[in-house]
Amino acid sequence: MAAGKNTVNIAIVGMGFMGRAHSSGWLESARFFDPPVTPVLHTVYGRDLARTQAFADRWGYAHAAVAGEGLTVAGEIDLVDVLTPNDLHLPQAKAALEAGKAVACEKPLAGTLDDARAMAELARRHKAPTFVWYNYRRCPAVALAARLVAEGKLGEITRVRASYLQSWATPDVPLVWRFLKEPSGCGAMGDLNAHIVDMTRFVTGMEITDICGAATGIFIPRRALPDGSGRTGAVTVDDTSIFLARWSNGALGSFEACRQATGNFNRHGFEINGTRGALRFDFERMNELEYYDADAPRATQGWANIMCTHAGDHPYLEAWWPDAHLLGYDHTFTHQAADILRVLAGQQPTVPLPDFQDAYQTQRVLEAALIAADKKTWVAMDDVK
Amino acid sequence: MAAGKNTVNIAIVGMGFMGRAHSSGWLESARFFDPPVTPVLHTVYGRDLARTQAFADRWGYAHAAVAGEGLTVAGEIDLVDVLTPNDLHLPQAKAALEAGKAVACEKPLAGTLDDARAMAELARRHKAPTFVWYNYRRCPAVALAARLVAEGKLGEITRVRASYLQSWATPDVPLVWRFLKEPSGCGAMGDLNAHIVDMTRFVTGMEITDICGAATGIFIPRRALPDGSGRTGAVTVDDTSIFLARWSNGALGSFEACRQATGNFNRHGFEINGTRGALRFDFERMNELEYYDADAPRATQGWANIMCTHAGDHPYLEAWWPDAHLLGYDHTFTHQAADILRVLAGQQPTVPLPDFQDAYQTQRVLEAALIAADKKTWVAMDDVK
Amino acid sequence: MAAGKNTVNIAIVGMGFMGRAHSSGWLESARFFDPPVTPVLHTVYGRDLARTQAFADRWGYAHAAVAGEGLTVAGEIDLVDVLTPNDLHLPQAKAALEAGKAVACEKPLAGTLDDARAMAELARRHKAPTFVWYNYRRCPAVALAARLVAEGKLGEITRVRASYLQSWATPDVPLVWRFLKEPSGCGAMGDLNAHIVDMTRFVTGMEITDICGAATGIFIPRRALPDGSGRTGAVTVDDTSIFLARWSNGALGSFEACRQATGNFNRHGFEINGTRGALRFDFERMNELEYYDADAPRATQGWANIMCTHAGDHPYLEAWWPDAHLLGYDHTFTHQAADILRVLAGQQPTVPLPDFQDAYQTQRVLEAALIAADKKTWVAMDDVK
Amino acid sequence: MAAGKNTVNIAIVGMGFMGRAHSSGWLESARFFDPPVTPVLHTVYGRDLARTQAFADRWGYAHAAVAGEGLTVAGEIDLVDVLTPNDLHLPQAKAALEAGKAVACEKPLAGTLDDARAMAELARRHKAPTFVWYNYRRCPAVALAARLVAEGKLGEITRVRASYLQSWATPDVPLVWRFLKEPSGCGAMGDLNAHIVDMTRFVTGMEITDICGAATGIFIPRRALPDGSGRTGAVTVDDTSIFLARWSNGALGSFEACRQATGNFNRHGFEINGTRGALRFDFERMNELEYYDADAPRATQGWANIMCTHAGDHPYLEAWWPDAHLLGYDHTFTHQAADILRVLAGQQPTVPLPDFQDAYQTQRVLEAALIAADKKTWVAMDDVK
Repeated sequence: MAAGKNTVNIAIVGMGFMGRAHSSGWLESARFFDPPVTPVLHTVYGRDLARTQAFADRWGYAHAAVAGEGLTVAGEIDLVDVLTPNDLHLPQAKAALEAGKAVACEKPLAGTLDDARAMAELARRHKAPTFVWYNYRRCPAVALAARLVAEGKLGEITRVRASYLQSWATPDVPLVWRFLKEPSGCGAMGDLNAHIVDMTRFVTGMEITDICGAATGIFIPRRALPDGSGRTGAVTVDDTSIFLARWSNGALGSFEACRQATGNFNRHGFEINGTRGALRFDFERMNELEYYDADAPRATQGWANIMCTHAGDHPYLEAWWPDAHLLGYDHTFTHQAADILRVLAGQQPTVPLPDFQDAYQTQRVLEAALIAADKKTWVAMDDVK
Repeated sequence: MAAGKNTVNIAIVGMGFMGRAHSSGWLESARFFDPPVTPVLHTVYGRDLARTQAFADRWGYAHAAVAGEGLTVAGEIDLVDVLTPNDLHLPQAKAALEAGKAVACEKPLAGTLDDARAMAELARRHKAPTFVWYNYRRCPAVALAARLVAEGKLGEITRVRASYLQSWATPDVPLVWRFLKEPSGCGAMGDLNAHIVDMTRFVTGMEITDICGAATGIFIPRRALPDGSGRTGAVTVDDTSIFLARWSNGALGSFEACRQATGNFNRHGFEINGTRGALRFDFERMNELEYYDADAPRATQGWANIMCTHAGDHPYLEAWWPDAHLLGYDHTFTHQAADILRVLAGQQPTVPLPDFQDAYQTQRVLEAALIAADKKTWVAMDDVK
Repeated sequence: MAAGKNTVNIAIVGMGFMGRAHSSGWLESARFFDPPVTPVLHTVYGRDLARTQAFADRWGYAHAAVAGEGLTVAGEIDLVDVLTPNDLHLPQAKAALEAGKAVACEKPLAGTLDDARAMAELARRHKAPTFVWYNYRRCPAVALAARLVAEGKLGEITRVRASYLQSWATPDVPLVWRFLKEPSGCGAMGDLNAHIVDMTRFVTGMEITDICGAATGIFIPRRALPDGSGRTGAVTVDDTSIFLARWSNGALGSFEACRQATGNFNRHGFEINGTRGALRFDFERMNELEYYDADAPRATQGWANIMCTHAGDHPYLEAWWPDAHLLGYDHTFTHQAADILRVLAGQQPTVPLPDFQDAYQTQRVLEAALIAADKKTWVAMDDVK
Repeated sequence: MAAGKNTVNIAIVGMGFMGRAHSSGWLESARFFDPPVTPVLHTVYGRDLARTQAFADRWGYAHAAVAGEGLTVAGEIDLVDVLTPNDLHLPQAKAALEAGKAVACEKPLAGTLDDARAMAELARRHKAPTFVWYNYRRCPAVALAARLVAEGKLGEITRVRASYLQSWATPDVPLVWRFLKEPSGCGAMGDLNAHIVDMTRFVTGMEITDICGAATGIFIPRRALPDGSGRTGAVTVDDTSIFLARWSNGALGSFEACRQATGNFNRHGFEINGTRGALRFDFERMNELEYYDADAPRATQGWANIMCTHAGDHPYLEAWWPDAHLLGYDHTFTHQAADILRVLAGQQPTVPLPDFQDAYQTQRVLEAALIAADKKTWVAMDDVK
């Protein structure tokens, strides 16, 4: 950005579900927060011009253009926001970085660890501001959890358990792209565990040192082709990915992602226990954080259900509504957008933003877990670069 | 609106908390839904031109203007959205109706039953489309509850219990306007019970026939003047309002509003029981509805916690995100805005919209409860017009 | 009891559900607690000798005998435990008191306020130890609640809400005795509200000064006769009883009993809010108490779910199991039995025991509520003796 | 037992916490159930005669005697109930079996897999009735879960997750025997995971085929000696034991035991998901079972919280109280005692009882998990005999 410029021209690459979430986030960031620089919806890049133009019209982007791997970023754009499939993250981020832009990228950083490493290196070389949309850090409840841990409220952490459970992959779902290694790159591990690895690294402030066993499963090995032919094809990515982990302070824990956990839709969260307290979070009740204060008098100790909507005491809430007028999923994007704008203007974000380097660390954990499942052994993180 | 016109020019009268909620609602209605007519943020009317202009700039209104009781509505405006204090609802709605506009009005319809009756009569006389922002009907969970009752899932209703509990009115809060009859018009009864009377009338499809006793209380009778003088003044509206009600089918129930219910912030909801099932709703978990199906096999009967985010099966969800990517408070305004736009274009709303006549019925209940508390007797609804 | 005697000979009058609960309570009190005097199951009085003898054999009573109104208590009996229908409480307690016995009586104290008053007067005249089985006081969670209030943890109480919800009285249930004024004496009011009036009086340490409106309802007015004749008869007691109450410090609240609250089985409990905190209890989760500490730092305030099983910190738990090895319904009888034995030996009970005089106060509240419902007005407690 | 004999003379070996739980169970089994044979508390064997006699007096055993490894069982005893430390299970069960007695043994079956195998072989050779006190199977909620799975309500099981979390092992607890390999034999794995391995094997009706990684941890490696000397000693058993498992149908899952999971006291339970439904159980709410019926209409699908107290529909409840008059921990022993008495009389138990052979299968899983943690690899169950 030019010094003194008080707008940020934003281009998004990709549309769909994430296109809507990001666009809403950028728009709301300016209306509910007072960012030091104002986001301008400049360009949306898509695959098909007609659909891209329709998207631009609906959301208020000034321009619509077509782009694939060979993204050419217009000069007046300040930030490129990449929301394409995982295998396009590297080439598009590369193009943007080489054009001197700041880059925000959807999670996971890339479809493979090689790509992720390359992206982290490119970011370092270009000294560009980079951001990865691990948006769940920005649930006020999760941000509060991190603050409580940093304040020492948990004492020494003894146990970290996280899971991300969904149930959409029922037997009747046909063999859509999400079940295929090409093009999806990854299954439950990269899609779901990515979020909770980032979330627990963020909340605990610790790193994982060992994967103590892992398993992946394809529960429904063949599915009907979506062409209606009646034939079936093989599922080539994991439905379920679970692994055990040892953390830098010796704490043990587990991670679990499952697409066939009936009864759960978007249930991702954690329980973290320490010598002085414990925390629980469940995204399906994203406005709440549960906190057990083991320093309280024993007669009244209990899991306190904190409604994380207290302006002034809970992150981001000063921008919103009176107490317990709940926030929703999309507001986590608003929060991230507002924080990115602050960082671009040289200010501190409310909650630290993961850059490419940070997201690469998360990716190493996922890769190590896949190796552990494949080799049926423990894997030391030091052996995975 | 002119026939064939595919935009609706909207003016809001008032700003503040509700101004933000409504503006966000109108904007999002066009982005997330596909309304048959497009809302245009035309004018915001405020008390102070500088602040009104700043609000218009932030939210994208084309015009800013000053207005009080003597509202003069510009000709090209189609809908006037009134968000001012209760005592201004009547004069401003009157001005808008007489100018031939559609009117949307914040709840409660008015500060007094006389005003509410006058507004209902004006609406009838002008044959104008009118709407009242009982937005909580449009929580998908509440709308689902109404649908389940209409389908007969509860059988005959035996019990209706509703409460709206807050806790902000602690002893240290000074004597702000909300504690004074002038200008607030009403205390907990009009502010809070209004919502749950509308909500239960909507969900049950029944009317209240008798107030079977009521009480109001001012728990903290004097508060510090906000001028810092150290002097105190008398609180002149109720902190707490409770009443018992008999419904048209003989079911009994209670309503309760309290501003000093420590531990509750915006906890409004209901439990409705019938011969075949029961429903529970708590706004502090607004994405969930609890349903007890007494027709299920007895061994597996239980309160089912329904995550009301299933696109296709739950109202409004087709416009939003994948399952269990939660909605928040502001989305109820988006839903109401989208429904108003449908009605203005001659279509059916997803969920029925209360008009002035309907909101007048709610107001009669509140008035009857105040009379019952004052006279320490039962009051038949037929005696309150 | 003779001075220095270290056993207490117990006679129960009545069998059935309560006979089992009391017998279990007396037996367990000696095994799990170390009462200063040992309970001896001496005699069971029933209506039919064969069934009474079978009950005695099963539970280990030394004697079985027949008794009705004209109870004649054997000389060596120390305590008469009355579990018969409400209309027998007065004559049987009278006989026991006149024979110089201590008397424990099931709740409510009597079927009518006249009987209750007479019993309280008899107890005073005979200076006998009397006890009423309001056993729910002795849930550790309820006892803890009372202790927290007494310690000032709630500050000034602003709101008291209690309800007792069941659902067994479905339309298909025939016209059994519980639906008839003769012999049951009372419906939901005396059967259910009795418990929660005692419970809230106990927990708050306050008294009710006014009934601010009340209503009773018979939702299903006629039911099939149980004789299989196909004919129906009229239900003559209330299915539902609700009333509003003002407490001695000005706090408002409500009580509600309902036999047709589908989805609830034995859900009795309360929410009590004060200026410094709040408490919630639900018997269907009787091992838990919820406590909101409004003095805690605002960022971490929340409803703490206290597992009330901490020996040393929670009442009665020192006698039982390790933490969170839950207690059940019948243990509340064990607790009351242990406390009665302490009192008979001149020691302090863990939790205060209601005597006839105390239970008479509860009965006055129920009577006042029935009057308020009948007259459709408020009723001052001072006017009900 | 002699044919036609209608009593069972019972001896317990051991006292303490389990002595109380078992004695209460035997006594209550006869009072609340109608067992075909009546249990007689014949003898308690302890280490110290005075304390053993006191225990016998309190609980009503006719005889008290001293016994160690060299147990000599009196001739008239029918069933020996072994509650001693794990290393005594084998010699005492052996003595009882060789004397021709039926044997009930506390869990885990033994401290080592060798002992467990020997016990299973002895039981087979002597053709004696044997029972292991995996009492949690007999929570009505757990028994209901097993029934629902057997009825096909879950369809094909895709995921099995179980954990047993406690928090008593805080840093200030001294080096008591539970932290030492000698004499405790095992740490969290044998003490806690044993229960949930049995519970999930029972509920799913499946067996584990592979341990897919495991880890154990000693979070606090040294603790103060309990002698007050100020010196410390090494903890020699695991505080935490976690492992991943593959089940016979390919489902994946995890097991976790932890003694330092702050905020959890006796929280053991499971979530089991299948293609048609799911189940959740948490012992800290032992009267409840959560069931998700994925065959229900999608609009009303939800986790149904089943209050498992419906006599006639829920196992064991016909013996107890009206609905939602909760059961507690000790009643699971009553249920097991009642079932053992039925089996001894040639009848079917309400819920299958694990015998030594069955408990040996559970023990193999625990052993395999310890091997997996030690070798840092997967372990096939077929390789562990």
